[in-house]
Amino acid sequence: GHPVFTDLPETVFESMSRLARQHGAINLGQGFPDGQGPDDVRAAAARALESVSNQYPPMMGLPSLRTAIAAHYRRHQGLDLDPEREVMVTSGATEALAGALMALVRPGDEVVLFEPMYDAYLPLVRRAGGVPRFVTLKPPHFRIEEAALAAVFSERTRLVLLNNPLNPSATVFGADDLGLLAAFCRRFEAIAICDEVWEHVIFDGRRHLPLMALPGMRERTVKIGSAGKIFSLTGWKVGFVMAAEPLMRVLSRAHQFLTFTTPPNLQEAVAYGLGKDDAYFEGMRADLARSRDRLAAGLSRIGFTVLPSAGTYFLTVDLAGLADDDVAFCQRIVAEHGVAAIPVSAFYAQGSVKSLARFCFAKADDTLDAAVERLAGLFRAA
Amino acid sequence: GHPVFTDLPETVFESMSRLARQHGAINLGQGFPDGQGPDDVRAAAARALESVSNQYPPMMGLPSLRTAIAAHYRRHQGLDLDPEREVMVTSGATEALAGALMALVRPGDEVVLFEPMYDAYLPLVRRAGGVPRFVTLKPPHFRIEEAALAAVFSERTRLVLLNNPLNPSATVFGADDLGLLAAFCRRFEAIAICDEVWEHVIFDGRRHLPLMALPGMRERTVKIGSAGKIFSLTGWKVGFVMAAEPLMRVLSRAHQFLTFTTPPNLQEAVAYGLGKDDAYFEGMRADLARSRDRLAAGLSRIGFTVLPSAGTYFLTVDLAGLADDDVAFCQRIVAEHGVAAIPVSAFYAQGSVKSLARFCFAKADDTLDAAVERLAGLFRAA
Ligand SMILES: CSCCC(=O)C(=O)O
Ligand SMILES: CSCCC(=O)C(=O)O
Repeated sequence: GHPVFTDLPETVFESMSRLARQHGAINLGQGFPDGQGPDDVRAAAARALESVSNQYPPMMGLPSLRTAIAAHYRRHQGLDLDPEREVMVTSGATEALAGALMALVRPGDEVVLFEPMYDAYLPLVRRAGGVPRFVTLKPPHFRIEEAALAAVFSERTRLVLLNNPLNPSATVFGADDLGLLAAFCRRFEAIAICDEVWEHVIFDGRRHLPLMALPGMRERTVKIGSAGKIFSLTGWKVGFVMAAEPLMRVLSRAHQFLTFTTPPNLQEAVAYGLGKDDAYFEGMRADLARSRDRLAAGLSRIGFTVLPSAGTYFLTVDLAGLADDDVAFCQRIVAEHGVAAIPVSAFYAQGSVKSLARFCFAKADDTLDAAVERLAGLFRAA
Repeated sequence: GHPVFTDLPETVFESMSRLARQHGAINLGQGFPDGQGPDDVRAAAARALESVSNQYPPMMGLPSLRTAIAAHYRRHQGLDLDPEREVMVTSGATEALAGALMALVRPGDEVVLFEPMYDAYLPLVRRAGGVPRFVTLKPPHFRIEEAALAAVFSERTRLVLLNNPLNPSATVFGADDLGLLAAFCRRFEAIAICDEVWEHVIFDGRRHLPLMALPGMRERTVKIGSAGKIFSLTGWKVGFVMAAEPLMRVLSRAHQFLTFTTPPNLQEAVAYGLGKDDAYFEGMRADLARSRDRLAAGLSRIGFTVLPSAGTYFLTVDLAGLADDDVAFCQRIVAEHGVAAIPVSAFYAQGSVKSLARFCFAKADDTLDAAVERLAGLFRAA
């Protein structure tokens, strides 16, 4: 046998960003905003280099940050979390996810995964010894159907891993979809890992419903959040994990041996940021919704079929009639038109969807307009 | 079966630091210095929050840092590393180690481990599916013997994991020990992971010999370093991995799914710090050697048998005649005498050594003197 990671490709986000640099392209591929995040949060990080210790903080995270996380989720999502026992800080949501899978998957356990899915999920499940069972969500609605759940859940189901809001389809799952999923989790005593890193990035007056808030799910859900996404500071790599104490005890064992802890000055700055008033969060959402609308309008105008985006930094376009293969399409537009996007097939493990491309709209207006202008050439040429 | 991490205890470093807080004890347990690291390196981190992007840096690390790492190891250790292909930045040396094991251990592979060993090693090897084979190094010399290697190496050996300088015994392995190990690695085509986080913290004119520099080892060694240890900034969690390109390709696959990347402002500050002149590194070593001598003299004076310390932040004392069980001893001194130490049995998987306690001397003189004063009560009472 080969080492389990040997045959993996480089993550598509990294490859596309490299191609974008090589071609001098506008990078609407990898999901990151083009600003520097809130000035006051960066200033708090600079101050904290002096005001807090730069030595190892507690393995579970700074008490100030764990308290701020619990208060934040109480205020925004009505959750009741014990900051001492039910909250842990990680070096980004990726570590939180890797740790949860390493901690909870026993070799041979079945893990229900929803396609499209973030490209880390499947290799991590496999590396942990899990056996993936796929639920394929299809464009344009990407809804969770009871029959699809019935087909994959069984006594062997140990875990379910859901991303809500869902990257890349920009779907926000509400009470209907989550209620179905929760019923199956309860019936088969499965644990749900809910990657909710986009929880604050939802539009048009929607409210995020944490899976943990559904009946019977409090004790069986691992909720994952991300300061990078909340504050548009994707490089900071400060994540959080919330779970009931018996689960948290196991999760902390993985964390202590994966990274052990997270830079204290960034933790302190995030603690400060989580206390920002509603105007900040509403303003961030409103700005991003305007950017979404601007890119959607521009892409529609030049000839793309744009799918709805209810959250995340992303929208997708349907390539039907334009290209048969989303990978070839994305390679062409980065090289020939100077715009990077992500082929959505990278999120489908079984090859069932190859007709969508994802664009990141968390960029300045000029950047979005320039990208649309460049892509217009695609339709003039055709 | 249980999840692989369920039955693990909390790491001894975290438990002891908690006990130290509870008892208001002087914490000479967990290894961290009591200062704030170099002022100029912290200032560089504050500046970089403004001067570099706070969004995702490249997955392998900022080019400026990778270049600085390669230059640093050329200057200090004569290594010739390609910063583009042979250097990767991780979120601390712990992530580097976890990633290397996840990437390189195939289920069933044998992994040679040297006791005493850092408490993360064995659970990570097991989680990756590896089968541990132990070489037990014994006080007071902790040397690597040919017969011990011959007893554990075989065709099934995939990996060797060595910490040099060795925490907690403060041993520095030189050409003899490393030459023996390299010969076995070559003969059995094993890969060596060498955790060299203490490489700069060596005393009395010693020079660190990287395992990678031995004949035949350049292509088969994964070298791990730590900015936290180099700059006495243990909370920063900036680690590095160096390996030949074919190995690095596999290591990067694990990294991209464990943390993906590391905060750019801290990376930039470490890039700055690695260029500091020899006086900085010599000064750091001289300060720590003075602290070692101060604590060793104090502990000897009150009645302890102090073992030699050639590197790391640590020295150990022999408890023979004082206590039968190092765990009970450490619990007693933290509760009754107000000084935290680490029982060295936590580093021995097979229970072969229970007669040593480890003290961290990377502290201000007053702190060390106060700890000695408190511990003197132990001998007066006896
Ligand atoms: C870790 S890089 C990927 C960032 C992201 O969330 C995305 O582009 O989907
Ligand atoms: C990750 S806490 C442990 C720090 C350390 O290296 C030690 O105390 O041995």
